Amino acid sequence: MQIITREEIVPLVSIPMAISVVKDAFMAFSEGLIDQPEPMQMLFKEDDGQLFGDCHVKAAQQKDHPYFVIKVAAGFYRNTAIGLPANNGLLLVMSSETGHPVALLKDEGWLTQIRTAAAGALAAALKPVAPDACLGIIGTGSQAYWQAALITQHLGLTKVAVFGRDHSASVALCDTLHQEFGLTATPMSSAYEVCQASNILVTVTPSSEPLIKPEDLPDEIHIVAVGADSPGKNEIASEIFKNADIMVTDNHEQCLAHGDFGVAVRAGMVAKDADISLPDVLAGKHSEMDFSTAKWTLVDLTGMGAQDLAIASLVVDNLTL
Amino acid sequence: MQIITREEIVPLVSIPMAISVVKDAFMAFSEGLIDQPEPMQMLFKEDDGQLFGDCHVKAAQQKDHPYFVIKVAAGFYRNTAIGLPANNGLLLVMSSETGHPVALLKDEGWLTQIRTAAAGALAAALKPVAPDACLGIIGTGSQAYWQAALITQHLGLTKVAVFGRDHSASVALCDTLHQEFGLTATPMSSAYEVCQASNILVTVTPSSEPLIKPEDLPDEIHIVAVGADSPGKNEIASEIFKNADIMVTDNHEQCLAHGDFGVAVRAGMVAKDADISLPDVLAGKHSEMDFSTAKWTLVDLTGMGAQDLAIASLVVDNLTL
Repeated sequence: MQIITREEIVPLVSIPMAISVVKDAFMAFSEGLIDQPEPMQMLFKEDDGQLFGDCHVKAAQQKDHPYFVIKVAAGFYRNTAIGLPANNGLLLVMSSETGHPVALLKDEGWLTQIRTAAAGALAAALKPVAPDACLGIIGTGSQAYWQAALITQHLGLTKVAVFGRDHSASVALCDTLHQEFGLTATPMSSAYEVCQASNILVTVTPSSEPLIKPEDLPDEIHIVAVGADSPGKNEIASEIFKNADIMVTDNHEQCLAHGDFGVAVRAGMVAKDADISLPDVLAGKHSEMDFSTAKWTLVDLTGMGAQDLAIASLVVDNLTL
Repeated sequence: MQIITREEIVPLVSIPMAISVVKDAFMAFSEGLIDQPEPMQMLFKEDDGQLFGDCHVKAAQQKDHPYFVIKVAAGFYRNTAIGLPANNGLLLVMSSETGHPVALLKDEGWLTQIRTAAAGALAAALKPVAPDACLGIIGTGSQAYWQAALITQHLGLTKVAVFGRDHSASVALCDTLHQEFGLTATPMSSAYEVCQASNILVTVTPSSEPLIKPEDLPDEIHIVAVGADSPGKNEIASEIFKNADIMVTDNHEQCLAHGDFGVAVRAGMVAKDADISLPDVLAGKHSEMDFSTAKWTLVDLTGMGAQDLAIASLVVDNLTL
C-alpha cells in the first residue's frame, strides 16, 4: 500500500478532469453500475449535548472497476481555536480483485472539497445562462472558494457575488477569487442582495436555520444547495421547494434523510417523490425537464461515495504504483 | 499519523489483555457509552452473480475515550489461488478530540481475528464447565485456531475436538494446537462426533447451510456461533434455537440481520425478542439466567465495532506516539 500525501495529490488533479470523472461517476450510478452502502455517521458531543465534531464514512464500488474506496471525512469545529484545520480526512483505495489496500490518500479532505465542488459545477450547469451571468455564493469557507472556482471555470462565468455572516470573510474571499481567477467578485451585505444579483446561487454554509427565503429570490434563479448534508442542517426555506419548477437531488434517499429536500418534505411543503435524480439528468434521462424556461430550480447535493471513487481513481490512475 | 505494521502490532497484544479489553468494551456498550453506526457491507460478484469477495466497515466511538476507530475487513476468496491471504484489513485510529488520524494499524486482519476470538472466549465462559471439559470446533481456518487458543486459555481447558470438511485440515489444526498450546486435540470425522464429545461447541465456518442439527447434539451443550455474520450464511439449524433454553446475541439488530439467530427468526422457529444481550449478560444484568443448569444454550456472535475500538486502543496505548 502506497501512502500519498496531499502535496503529492494536488498536482495530479485538474479541475476539468475532476468535473469530467465526477460526471462519469454520476452517469455510471444512473446506469446501476455503482454500489454505495449507506454512509456511516458518528457525532461527537460535549457533556451538555453540543456538537463539536462529526465523522462521515462513505464507500463505493463500481462494476468492472479496478478499485473500490472507503472515504473518511471528519469535521471538528474546535480545532481552529488550537491552530488545526477543522476538516480532515483520508481516502482508502482498495483492489476490487483482491480486497487488498492499494493506496492511502492522505488528502486531509482536499479531494472531498474538489469532488463536492465538481458536483456543484455539474449541478450549476443544468441551467443555461449567459456568459455575463452572476454566480451568487452564500458562505465564505473553503468549499465556497472551490464552488466559485469550479462553477465559474466550468460555465465560463466571470461575475461572482458573495455573502457570509462575517463581512470581512466575504471581502477576503472576493479578493482571493479576483487574484487567483481574475473574477469580478463583489462582497454583499445580505443574502437578499446576492440572490437579487444572481442567476445561479450556491449555498455552502453549515447553517441549521434557513438562510434563503422566498422573498429573497428574483423571478428566475437556479439554486445549488450544498451545505446541508446531515440532519439538523438547513439552508433553503422549505417554501422555496414548494414553489420550485424543478427539484433535483444527487441521491434521493440521502437528501430525504440529510438534505434541505428532506426538511421540506417533513415540513409538508413538497411530496416525497417530487425530486428527479441528478445522475439521471446527467445521463440524459430527463430531457422533458426544461431548465432554460423554468423559473425557480433547485439541486440538493449531499455527496455520494461514487464521487469519492471517481476522484480517488483519477489520482491513482496518475500514479505509478 | 503513525503507520503500524502487523509485525509491530502482534507483540503488543497478549491474549488475557485482549479478552479483558473486549469484555470492558461489551460492558461499556451495555452501559450505553458506545456509539457504533450500522456497519457497511460491499459485496463483489462475478458476472454470473457468484460472490468472490466482501468488505465490511465497522466503526465505534466511546464516551470520554481518546480515540475512535474505523475498521476495514476484506475477504476475497480467490486470493489463495494466487498465493495471497483471503482475509485482509486495517484499522484507522482517529482522535476523538480533533478528528485527526492518529494511527493506521496495518494489521492485515490480525486484530479482527483476536477480538473475534476474545468475544468467543467471553461467550464460551458463560457456561461453567469442568477443567476436563472438551471444546468442540467446527471449522479449520484461522479463526478456528484463534477460538481454540483463546477459549482453552481463558477457561483452562486442555481437550479439543475438531471437524472440518477437509479431514487433512482438521488433522493439521489439531497438530498445531497440540504443538503450540499442548492441547489434546482430536480430529473427528463428523460434526455429530464433535458435538457428542463436547461440552462447549464453537462454529467458525462460512457455511450457507446449517452444519449443526438437533440430532447432532448431546443433552447438554453450550454453542458459540461465530461463522454466520452476513445474510446468506447459516451454521446452526433453526430448530436448535427453538429448543434452546437461553439464546444470547452480541448485538440484537445485527444478529437479526446477519446471524444464525435471524435465520431462525425468519424461519418462524423463535420469537424476534427471544434473545438476551451478551453485553448485558457480561455486565451482570441477567443473573436470573442460569447457564449451569440449562441444557442447550447458544451465543450468536456477529462482531461489533466496540471490539475493534477496544483492541485498537490496546495497541495504541502500548505505542509511544
